[in-house]
Amino acid sequence: MAAIKLHGYPQSTCTTNVLACIHEKEIDYEFVTVDMLTGAHKQPSFLALNPLGQLPVIQDGDLTLFESRAIIKYLAKKNEGKGSNLWGSTLTEQALVEQWSQVESQSYNPAVTAIIVQKVFAPMMGGKTDEGIVQSSVEKLSKVLDVYEERLSKSKFLAGDFFSIADLPHLSYTHYLIKMAGEGHLITSRPHVKAWWETISSRPSWLKVLAFAKF
Amino acid sequence: MAAIKLHGYPQSTCTTNVLACIHEKEIDYEFVTVDMLTGAHKQPSFLALNPLGQLPVIQDGDLTLFESRAIIKYLAKKNEGKGSNLWGSTLTEQALVEQWSQVESQSYNPAVTAIIVQKVFAPMMGGKTDEGIVQSSVEKLSKVLDVYEERLSKSKFLAGDFFSIADLPHLSYTHYLIKMAGEGHLITSRPHVKAWWETISSRPSWLKVLAFAKF
Repeated sequence: MAAIKLHGYPQSTCTTNVLACIHEKEIDYEFVTVDMLTGAHKQPSFLALNPLGQLPVIQDGDLTLFESRAIIKYLAKKNEGKGSNLWGSTLTEQALVEQWSQVESQSYNPAVTAIIVQKVFAPMMGGKTDEGIVQSSVEKLSKVLDVYEERLSKSKFLAGDFFSIADLPHLSYTHYLIKMAGEGHLITSRPHVKAWWETISSRPSWLKVLAFAKF
Repeated sequence: MAAIKLHGYPQSTCTTNVLACIHEKEIDYEFVTVDMLTGAHKQPSFLALNPLGQLPVIQDGDLTLFESRAIIKYLAKKNEGKGSNLWGSTLTEQALVEQWSQVESQSYNPAVTAIIVQKVFAPMMGGKTDEGIVQSSVEKLSKVLDVYEERLSKSKFLAGDFFSIADLPHLSYTHYLIKMAGEGHLITSRPHVKAWWETISSRPSWLKVLAFAKF
């Protein structure tokens, strides 16, 4: 089978989440760097792949696919028998994987992203951190993490006792939250969340991503 | 098969999206009203069903499931042979359904929700509309709708030539956008988006939801 093409940028969180999935599934791939720092993702050649102008995009034969979570689900499904399962086996397991995936994308991610934008990217671009947004986002994230703490006291991972595509997208964002935004205490102050983070962030797939992205 | 229980509120957008799916799939259900206007969704009995305190939740035998998009996907999968297909047949079709579902949840929905909150709910709660947020959200939504316009010039629905769970969650939010927020011109000024909206909002499933929700 020909290698898939992954169009991305090494330090883009959505790119590194897809890359973690590629390593989990032991998929052959070719990395095509789209230099988002010079705006390559807003140029016509990239917009032809994704009209929204967002990274990453994969090309797998005739299929061009964007949206990192859709890519992860597609790769997990297509390579069902390879590498880690990532999706559960029964309809009920898969429903819970989808449920916690939605909590990540609807509740966890917006709060974490707002904190990272304010504490990391705003100063980097010469702007000021809006402390009000940071505070309200930390409050929102804390509520989600309290729900995670309770959930992770009952199961090793979010959807059950197996690592899944519900856990996976947390890797990039939480890495940034801890290493760049200095908000690691939100994770380490909750024992079950802390243990879960240590488990998922020490997976060989993620260690390979870290070595590649150097972030 | 015993009827599923749908815990929701008739005018909650996430509830009515799930209800549209239930009608598309011709599923027996029992509606349990959770009076969000008096805060019933933040009471212990409801938090035991969904610790995030959000509507809706379904109970299907032993399974309790929250997050409307996860519920819709579960019901579509479980009832594959009943009613409308909603998910495509091949791996590629399903990947495109998932891709456009993600565009809805990551790009379309945040912009529409911000407009509705500012133009409908803020005044309803005695607050003021933040015109700056409305304007920036209308700009964001316009960009997404330009992408939809191009896409819908090539296929009848977002993921292809079949109505799917990628189109379905647009029903509630777009209804509010047009009827309550007075921003219908964003839809009607784009011929292919307009035709798509007329097609999906006249489906029998959605007409049943409108009759029930009376909104």
